[in-house]
Amino acid sequence: MRQLWRNFHAATMTRGAYSAIERAAIVTLDDRIEWIGPEAALPAVEAAREHDLGGAWVTPGLIDCHTHLVFGGNRSLEFEQRLQGVDYATIAAQGGGIASTVRATRAASENELYASARERALHLLRDGVTTLEVKSGYGLDLPNERKMLRVARRLGQTLPVTVRATCLAAHALPPEFAGRADDYIHEVAQRMLPVLAAEGLIDAVDAFCEHLAFSPEQVERVFQAARQLGLPVKLHAEQLSSLHGATLATRYGALSADHLEYLTESDVLAMARAGTVAVLLPGAFYALRETQPPPIELLRRHGVPIAISTDLNPGTSPVLSLRLMLSMACTLFRMTPEEALAGATVHAARALGLQGTHGELAPGRAADFVAWEIGHPSELAYWIGGDLPKRVIRHAEDAGAPRRD
Amino acid sequence: MRQLWRNFHAATMTRGAYSAIERAAIVTLDDRIEWIGPEAALPAVEAAREHDLGGAWVTPGLIDCHTHLVFGGNRSLEFEQRLQGVDYATIAAQGGGIASTVRATRAASENELYASARERALHLLRDGVTTLEVKSGYGLDLPNERKMLRVARRLGQTLPVTVRATCLAAHALPPEFAGRADDYIHEVAQRMLPVLAAEGLIDAVDAFCEHLAFSPEQVERVFQAARQLGLPVKLHAEQLSSLHGATLATRYGALSADHLEYLTESDVLAMARAGTVAVLLPGAFYALRETQPPPIELLRRHGVPIAISTDLNPGTSPVLSLRLMLSMACTLFRMTPEEALAGATVHAARALGLQGTHGELAPGRAADFVAWEIGHPSELAYWIGGDLPKRVIRHAEDAGAPRRD
Ligand SMILES: [Zn+2]
Ligand SMILES: [Zn+2]
Repeated sequence: MRQLWRNFHAATMTRGAYSAIERAAIVTLDDRIEWIGPEAALPAVEAAREHDLGGAWVTPGLIDCHTHLVFGGNRSLEFEQRLQGVDYATIAAQGGGIASTVRATRAASENELYASARERALHLLRDGVTTLEVKSGYGLDLPNERKMLRVARRLGQTLPVTVRATCLAAHALPPEFAGRADDYIHEVAQRMLPVLAAEGLIDAVDAFCEHLAFSPEQVERVFQAARQLGLPVKLHAEQLSSLHGATLATRYGALSADHLEYLTESDVLAMARAGTVAVLLPGAFYALRETQPPPIELLRRHGVPIAISTDLNPGTSPVLSLRLMLSMACTLFRMTPEEALAGATVHAARALGLQGTHGELAPGRAADFVAWEIGHPSELAYWIGGDLPKRVIRHAEDAGAPRRD
Repeated sequence: MRQLWRNFHAATMTRGAYSAIERAAIVTLDDRIEWIGPEAALPAVEAAREHDLGGAWVTPGLIDCHTHLVFGGNRSLEFEQRLQGVDYATIAAQGGGIASTVRATRAASENELYASARERALHLLRDGVTTLEVKSGYGLDLPNERKMLRVARRLGQTLPVTVRATCLAAHALPPEFAGRADDYIHEVAQRMLPVLAAEGLIDAVDAFCEHLAFSPEQVERVFQAARQLGLPVKLHAEQLSSLHGATLATRYGALSADHLEYLTESDVLAMARAGTVAVLLPGAFYALRETQPPPIELLRRHGVPIAISTDLNPGTSPVLSLRLMLSMACTLFRMTPEEALAGATVHAARALGLQGTHGELAPGRAADFVAWEIGHPSELAYWIGGDLPKRVIRHAEDAGAPRRD
């Protein structure tokens, strides 16, 4: 079905800039954009439906390219304990931290996980998100990683959102492998990834490269397995220290390297050469009260595309709004509102391997867009919190405010 | 009308703590709470209506005790310019900063100001706010301060929210008084306050005590006028430097001193003696990237009640969510979730002179409460952004999600 959308201004985000069109129109054919331009230049089309967007600013649908939104339980009581002065050792001795999320995720049924993940996904969708990445990584064994990834697939089938599922089995060492990290990595690379890939549950493979988690050598074995399976890779890298995981990731043509507070200039150059996206996570930076921001100026200078995401997770970033991350990207990392919006649209698409199909308003791209009742797109990063009035269109259909039930 | 509310847990917030009641019930009579306690102890009552709150956690309605939500225009383009590297001097030379908000506010009609303020108020209301303070201070002459205060009154008459209006004519020096601050203070104290008070537009008087704004001596002249008119006072104090404005305010029995990053221990002792509330504004701290937090430990040690507010304003705190300020109070100021919630309920009520009528779940208090679909009240500070599912009750009636129109 051909539809005409008119009476709005467009921030198309092509070339990573607003690339604005004032008094714009869009023609969609089925679930794709067929034409976009100034309304004055609109070609003669026969549209089955016509939509007046009332002078709104239209942006591409937001893309949250790094989330851990499937998990059991939450860690609000631990959050409260820490602020009451209880130290990490005591919380760990109580079985807190990521171990508690692994326990709760393993204990939850697939339906229970789906129900809680759906609620969190609805927060993001009502905020303007039309594409979403979901990582596994709290199951840490085959049946539980499978369960998480099946929930990710089901979210994409039941909600008006495109979901990319990433296997992050190499997130943490499960308790049954304590002291045997190499054995666990062998299990991930030789058994879990092949099985889950064969079941069609994985779009990309991720790992956590950090002293607390896995070494570059261990990560490399996971990446080699991914390469054999024909799956693209990403990496949690340089969040707390510099291990040059980002550079390692570029050798495997990584879609993205994520966090990056301790990224060096040589890593930046490697990312620029490989076309690897820098995914920055200001919510985790905020929640962990980090003090060293990622090297924005180096990333700019060398032309590395910068994406922004929620990192939605129960421990270090319980963030339910991608738009709020635009504010934090500007205020905490000194990005501009335009860069931040590009980071949640066109560059986020690239971080998911969706460049050319998502993240821009251009012919041939998915007809996923948001009509915001604002005076200028800079307001998306300017207002802190709140739920800006908007109309969310996904696949040329009103995604509106999906109902809670 | 008598109504029964059952099947929930209550965080009553009496004595500034959760003071939780599990499996609680509330009986309301007209717009007040008549009885609250464990459902098992419910007295025999004949209720015209009965409400099942489905296992929610019920808190007092949130109270935003420090906002500047009536203003013309917004400053998102200036926000973008600053992040593009344009310096303050250039922005000021373009007529930016607070001067631009004063111009836009003066240029707006009362209906225009009302319409934009209503939209912002709806953000706060949907977030759980049932009582709201609104300051003037962008008019800076009698007709325009009156216009702002009339909008504040109208918000209270048309929306399901209790509004307290504060005259902040001593916010900044208007351009027509450049170089004549004492003359402007004379105008505020001798002409504007008496007229606006006589028109019933003022519930409290505020001023901005800072090198950039007004001296303690000038503030004192405003406070003397307020005292003569029988109006309580509050003060923007010690935000950027220590002028001991908070101590000055206590000598006038101030309801609150607000901001307080540079508060000293002698100021804290004076506030404790006077019962003056410390209103902390983590949104402005965040947006201005301040590094010195208010002295939380001193305030705790000396028993000064701490309130938390949005400081909603277009320049330094364009914050549309009071719940998000609970997160920032915890993360940026190291308050506990319980202290933060007390700061947006019982202590915020006191900062508005509403102790004993608002801010707690207790017999005789306003039947203003929020039923949150959460597992524990710490989640209110834990989740960052999003719009938590809730039912907002104000004056024993569903305030729900007032419609935009
Ligand atoms: Zn992550
Ligand atoms: Zn203020």
